Amino acid sequence: MAADKAALLIENNNVVGASGFTKAGDSKSVLPAFAKRAATEDVAITLITGASLGYTTDADLAENNALLRRMPFMADPALRKSINDYRLKYIDQHLSETVEQLICGHIAPVDVAIIEASLIDENGNIIPTTSIGNSAFFASQAKKIIIEINTKIPLSFKGIHDCSVPNSYPDREVINIQNPTDRIGKPFIEIDPEKVIAVVYTDITDQPAVIAEPDVKTTAISNHLLNFFENEVKKGKLTYSLLPLQAGIGKVANSVLMGFKNSNFKNLTMYSEVLQDSTFELIDSGNLDFASGSSITVSEDCYDRLINNFDDYKDKLILRPQNISNAPEVVRRLGIIGINTAIEFDIYGNVNSTHISGSKMMNGIGGSGDFARNAYLSIFVCQSASKENNISHVVPMVTHHDHTEHDVDILVTDQGLADLRGLAPRERAEVIIENCVHPDFKAEIRDYFQRACNQTGGQTPHILEEAFKFHNRLKQTGSMQNKKTLA
Amino acid sequence: MAADKAALLIENNNVVGASGFTKAGDSKSVLPAFAKRAATEDVAITLITGASLGYTTDADLAENNALLRRMPFMADPALRKSINDYRLKYIDQHLSETVEQLICGHIAPVDVAIIEASLIDENGNIIPTTSIGNSAFFASQAKKIIIEINTKIPLSFKGIHDCSVPNSYPDREVINIQNPTDRIGKPFIEIDPEKVIAVVYTDITDQPAVIAEPDVKTTAISNHLLNFFENEVKKGKLTYSLLPLQAGIGKVANSVLMGFKNSNFKNLTMYSEVLQDSTFELIDSGNLDFASGSSITVSEDCYDRLINNFDDYKDKLILRPQNISNAPEVVRRLGIIGINTAIEFDIYGNVNSTHISGSKMMNGIGGSGDFARNAYLSIFVCQSASKENNISHVVPMVTHHDHTEHDVDILVTDQGLADLRGLAPRERAEVIIENCVHPDFKAEIRDYFQRACNQTGGQTPHILEEAFKFHNRLKQTGSMQNKKTLA
Repeated sequence: MAADKAALLIENNNVVGASGFTKAGDSKSVLPAFAKRAATEDVAITLITGASLGYTTDADLAENNALLRRMPFMADPALRKSINDYRLKYIDQHLSETVEQLICGHIAPVDVAIIEASLIDENGNIIPTTSIGNSAFFASQAKKIIIEINTKIPLSFKGIHDCSVPNSYPDREVINIQNPTDRIGKPFIEIDPEKVIAVVYTDITDQPAVIAEPDVKTTAISNHLLNFFENEVKKGKLTYSLLPLQAGIGKVANSVLMGFKNSNFKNLTMYSEVLQDSTFELIDSGNLDFASGSSITVSEDCYDRLINNFDDYKDKLILRPQNISNAPEVVRRLGIIGINTAIEFDIYGNVNSTHISGSKMMNGIGGSGDFARNAYLSIFVCQSASKENNISHVVPMVTHHDHTEHDVDILVTDQGLADLRGLAPRERAEVIIENCVHPDFKAEIRDYFQRACNQTGGQTPHILEEAFKFHNRLKQTGSMQNKKTLA
Repeated sequence: MAADKAALLIENNNVVGASGFTKAGDSKSVLPAFAKRAATEDVAITLITGASLGYTTDADLAENNALLRRMPFMADPALRKSINDYRLKYIDQHLSETVEQLICGHIAPVDVAIIEASLIDENGNIIPTTSIGNSAFFASQAKKIIIEINTKIPLSFKGIHDCSVPNSYPDREVINIQNPTDRIGKPFIEIDPEKVIAVVYTDITDQPAVIAEPDVKTTAISNHLLNFFENEVKKGKLTYSLLPLQAGIGKVANSVLMGFKNSNFKNLTMYSEVLQDSTFELIDSGNLDFASGSSITVSEDCYDRLINNFDDYKDKLILRPQNISNAPEVVRRLGIIGINTAIEFDIYGNVNSTHISGSKMMNGIGGSGDFARNAYLSIFVCQSASKENNISHVVPMVTHHDHTEHDVDILVTDQGLADLRGLAPRERAEVIIENCVHPDFKAEIRDYFQRACNQTGGQTPHILEEAFKFHNRLKQTGSMQNKKTLA
């Protein structure tokens, strides 16, 4: 069926569950066609995906007012603007939990599933493409299924997926993964062929990821972290194969992983959500033995290398549903080392992953909480300062809390690393201020902390009237820097 | 051995792992003797327990400067004062995670374990008493073990415990519990008899819990919640046996559970941490079939009833280590309905469980995070206002974040219930303000929210300069009420 015809099968107010996880394996024709339809017709849907979509799909949907609700993740600039203007309702979820909420009936069930496939097998089952996300569950819950067969994906992709759908309560089962290589499901998404209302063909590759080359700051962060791991090995706490790694999406986390390439670390494994260029570089360099994730989101070069040499990688990869790749149970059991990016963190180790100055959404929390809460080591990285050092990413108090002091072990900026394990809040503040804060802000943050200890005291000393002074100054002057002091 | 002699075996700077969980099964002679020793001698320890201790043990230790560090929980007023005066370092932990941090070597290992026992069996193994807490792990890690045999505990207690110790990474195992009644361990704590350096006898019962009778507010909270559950049953989302219940410690949670007594809810089960009076009342009333926990913390009356009729209760109870009773994996698999108490929550659903005005520790986070993050339903309860309505427990922004908006489904005060499932932040604010805020504060909170939407906008509108205005006013005037407006 033509995509624009398939898009007509989506009804106003439908809940649509679509494939797509960080631009990988998303709907490349039907959702864009629905966005087009919404430009001239008064139709809108609740859209649930794995994570972000590629190209301008999220932007086109948002700008044509085609979205009533969007979950569980966002990263697109135009969608961001619509969300912050409250033109649609965005619900930010831990990525492992969307399926939980659908199973429990906490959110309205999926009416229509749109799933990108590399193939429909002889029994009518779907072989997914470069991501699984929530597709397996969407297909099981939806009354109607639209399949997009992407002919660009080689048929040899069959076999890298491990698909399953959890039972409903009270009959939930053990997720019996004890090693990143373990399989618990089937290499396809089982569907009821009766539900399929359209099959659409596409030949569009995933939107390539833009991979920033490591720079001075990301290299510094990577080096601090590698030194830390070296020391853990020296202390006998870890071996050179560490424990399974998880890395959040983006430049910093990718750069940190790249750092393992010329290192002593061998036989590494990953149990992560997004597999980026660094994963394949580390497989090529012989440092990484195996990678489990929910999507493959890579640059054009890496994509071509992967597709053209797929047999070299196939037995080193598994893609899983995100409720499995991010399952708290598996994260704790495997002892994941989770490396995620913060927007800002505060002197006591609380992390803001999502909001700018407390109110505006930047991007969703993603899987960071799934990993940080249950990881063997919960690591957050960010630059110490940005915008010509007008913004400090270490602040007295974060303006939005996504990860609390209870869930953060290690903080790293280009300035250094703070190892918070076993420390009380005031000790954490000392080590964070000493090791992580940019020199331009160090004196003022230290002064805040010392006055908070003296004036207020307590377990977690704060001066509430001043806790957001960096953010308020930024709003007033365009800089968190205290120009008076500088002048 | 006499307790004061056993207390001499604890060395200065030792890490002591002691039994005791919310006043149940704690050391009643050796730790008090160590506190006495510290009154005249310069000795101090790191003390790790299950949770809080009974009688004045925590107070005596703190006041005699016998504590260097204390984890993972606190609730004693004198200990609280010492912590807020920073005379010792308190590390507030999710109760499931203390053992994790010890296994990983993130915190220094236990040197000496002090464990209350009802019996040492013929193989030298310990039968615990009214709690397990972290005792099984402490006994496996410690080089030295001191056993307190409490002769007040009937020998028939043997059999209610299910003890196990997790493997170290990378060999962690599945926690194979699929029903609150499932057992995965042994009815005793296995120990190496070579490690036992002292056996001390006591005949002191646990300090009784003070159970407040339900009052107007707690009854209102209970009724709101029962109505909610009734509606969930009517909608077909739950049956009258619900899903396994967890209830935090304290008056409100206990009162909520009491509400089930004269209700339509039958064949209930609990998978909780502390079993309070309400558990046994619900067993007696025939509403509750089975209860799993880590401790039994009850009033004097209930304690006597339990001890004197233990055979009536024995097959309806299991006590587990807290890393199992609170295991994220089990909480999500069983689909726990978690009911915990908040100190305050904010208009977007963030919860403060631990701090007063952002700085002073009130009591530890306990297991609330273990349950809230992974529960089928994460419910927080508190009164809408207190101290003659000078304090509102719903505020524009909480001053300390223990549970983020991502982990909170239902909020209940005496005013009403806010069902936040599937709502975007601004929708959550509407329903929280409408349903949960005390009338004295409603207009001002609504005004804050509306101005935040208009002036700042965004996903989670806040006016950072005013976000803590209730708390700042409380500090300045002794009341969160806007007296000017009232006058």
